[in-house]
Amino acid sequence: MSAPIAPFPQVDHQRAVFPDGLALDCGMTIAPLAVAYRTYGRLNAARSNAVLICHALTGDQYVAETHPLTGRAGWWENIVGPGRPLDTDRYFLICANVLGGCMGSTGPREEKTDAAGRGLGRPWGTDFPNVTIRDMVRAQKRLAEHLGIERLLGVVGGSMGGMQVLEWAATYPDAVFAAAPIATAAHHSAQNIAFHEVGRAAIHSDPDWRGGRYWEDGRVPAKGLSVARMVAHITYLSEQALTRKFGRRLRGAAALTFLEDVFEVESYLRYQGSTFVRRFDANSYLTITRAMDYFDLAAEHGGDLAAAFRGTKTRFFVSSFSSDWLFPTAESRALVRALNAAAANVSFVEIESDKGHDAFLLEEPDFHRALGGFLAGCADRLGV
Amino acid sequence: MSAPIAPFPQVDHQRAVFPDGLALDCGMTIAPLAVAYRTYGRLNAARSNAVLICHALTGDQYVAETHPLTGRAGWWENIVGPGRPLDTDRYFLICANVLGGCMGSTGPREEKTDAAGRGLGRPWGTDFPNVTIRDMVRAQKRLAEHLGIERLLGVVGGSMGGMQVLEWAATYPDAVFAAAPIATAAHHSAQNIAFHEVGRAAIHSDPDWRGGRYWEDGRVPAKGLSVARMVAHITYLSEQALTRKFGRRLRGAAALTFLEDVFEVESYLRYQGSTFVRRFDANSYLTITRAMDYFDLAAEHGGDLAAAFRGTKTRFFVSSFSSDWLFPTAESRALVRALNAAAANVSFVEIESDKGHDAFLLEEPDFHRALGGFLAGCADRLGV
Repeated sequence: MSAPIAPFPQVDHQRAVFPDGLALDCGMTIAPLAVAYRTYGRLNAARSNAVLICHALTGDQYVAETHPLTGRAGWWENIVGPGRPLDTDRYFLICANVLGGCMGSTGPREEKTDAAGRGLGRPWGTDFPNVTIRDMVRAQKRLAEHLGIERLLGVVGGSMGGMQVLEWAATYPDAVFAAAPIATAAHHSAQNIAFHEVGRAAIHSDPDWRGGRYWEDGRVPAKGLSVARMVAHITYLSEQALTRKFGRRLRGAAALTFLEDVFEVESYLRYQGSTFVRRFDANSYLTITRAMDYFDLAAEHGGDLAAAFRGTKTRFFVSSFSSDWLFPTAESRALVRALNAAAANVSFVEIESDKGHDAFLLEEPDFHRALGGFLAGCADRLGV
Repeated sequence: MSAPIAPFPQVDHQRAVFPDGLALDCGMTIAPLAVAYRTYGRLNAARSNAVLICHALTGDQYVAETHPLTGRAGWWENIVGPGRPLDTDRYFLICANVLGGCMGSTGPREEKTDAAGRGLGRPWGTDFPNVTIRDMVRAQKRLAEHLGIERLLGVVGGSMGGMQVLEWAATYPDAVFAAAPIATAAHHSAQNIAFHEVGRAAIHSDPDWRGGRYWEDGRVPAKGLSVARMVAHITYLSEQALTRKFGRRLRGAAALTFLEDVFEVESYLRYQGSTFVRRFDANSYLTITRAMDYFDLAAEHGGDLAAAFRGTKTRFFVSSFSSDWLFPTAESRALVRALNAAAANVSFVEIESDKGHDAFLLEEPDFHRALGGFLAGCADRLGV
């Protein structure tokens, strides 16, 4: 298998490799398939306590430990651990880097292979096929089987992670006892696609992107990827959150001089952009945003979202946040209506929060209690 | 005065030139001052029927006639004309390109001058000073005086145009009989600043911007400016409008293939970006977005918005659109509360519309009736 390309620090990710590869929705088979992952807690003897965590667009498998590139805490460390909602004393937690990602799973940064699975000595780059959320889920299913798990106690995730949760429940209903799609939707909206397209246009516009072949001169399209991150970051926060955090405060000045004034919100966004490019691959960003844009679970089932869940025995816990305008509550309600139409076992909560889409990653005690309670109830029922 | 720089077609704009120039909020004086403008209708003998229209960020003075660069209809042609809300049989309408703009008024594209007003043979570019909404209004006041108008029957404008309306009423209360700030706010919010900063970062990231000196090689930072336009354009529309116009429809394909699929909303945005760069100057975009970000009318009056309007005799008509998330109704309500606290004569209407911020430019009969009625009532009262 491949080494990461030059501009990224080498990380020895834990991973499972499947030589026979994976058949993708686009018709191509990619082989071998590598799935990088992390686990927390212990799998019980009955193999009945596994909970799969699905990460969002720019997340990765380092859920609850120091990130190997940034040195920062895991992205869901606030809810993963002994006695926490994702209780490592009770559950065996798994998180895999998505197919198309850049933290060790097969993706644009990894070595390109030919149809026979032989390495070609260069990264995939933009030759990497377009993947779908369902392709990502198929790769995770291979990992679960590799770990000896036939049925997951739970599948949990927010945003793009929630899309994966829904795809898991629709594609492998017997393998999912409990599903918690958080701050998500059954399809990507026109506005969501539009924001993604701005990010892609920014990357494409960066001459350092070089048509996706930036590894050839050891540079990365840092400016374009940074702009993509900046616009995405705004969509993750509510107007209220931005106002509370920054308002119209100036950096290093008390009042406007109309000369070199910089608002705090500007320098914050620039910082978000500049740190992102040190940990994320631009071609991965293109691949994963495309996968999200493609996602339309109803379309996969003849235009009928309820058909995706017909006959399901999975228990669903749907949650949204009141100030999330990227995946607004209306999308969760549409999902709940479809689950009801499929006579599924579903509960729904809209959490009052002014933190926007990112609320699912932040301190929201009501949300944490609800999610933890749902999982614990399901575990009780399974005798875990 | 200057000639436009190479990449733009030369247009012989109608303009007034003030050799003594204009003192700016930043402390600098810019001389000479040129104000490009268009008028519609006839000034009456009493000079009492003049209505100033203030354009938005990317608008210009070609309100109700074919645009000299794009060949398209004027941006408010739907409400300007005989018998229309901005009735050219009754009013003398004036619209000036804003200071800092790129359609003939003094701005980054025009020839740089020294302190004595002598041309330096090169454009201002990024040497152009940071201007404010108040500076723009001061330039318009000079134009009004030049046209022999002491008091305007009305000042009307949406978005950044609405900011100018508010600044007119606050700075020259005796010169404004009626003020109609539309889809606007008394300050730019953190989220608004954040979106602008993304656009600026995209322009700054384009190597063709060359630190603002792009005229030197006859190129323009088309990719960066295009990305800036794309992200801004999303903020001008509501999610509902994007869904209604485009949904998840594909360009030239019935169903996703996960190969070369392009969503219609993507190609629309790309088109918006690519056409914008043929008519707008990148350095102007930087200058004008900054001016909007600076705008904070309360801060200009000791932190008290009501103080901006204390003792005013101006009649106000404040309007907003229910699906406008860039300048939401809450901002107009805050403005109305301040006007009420100043005991001003104010009426307010929130127009039900799912078209987003751009609704003020579109077919909204309720809005047109309300605006037209307000202006006509004020004209009646003045005996116009």
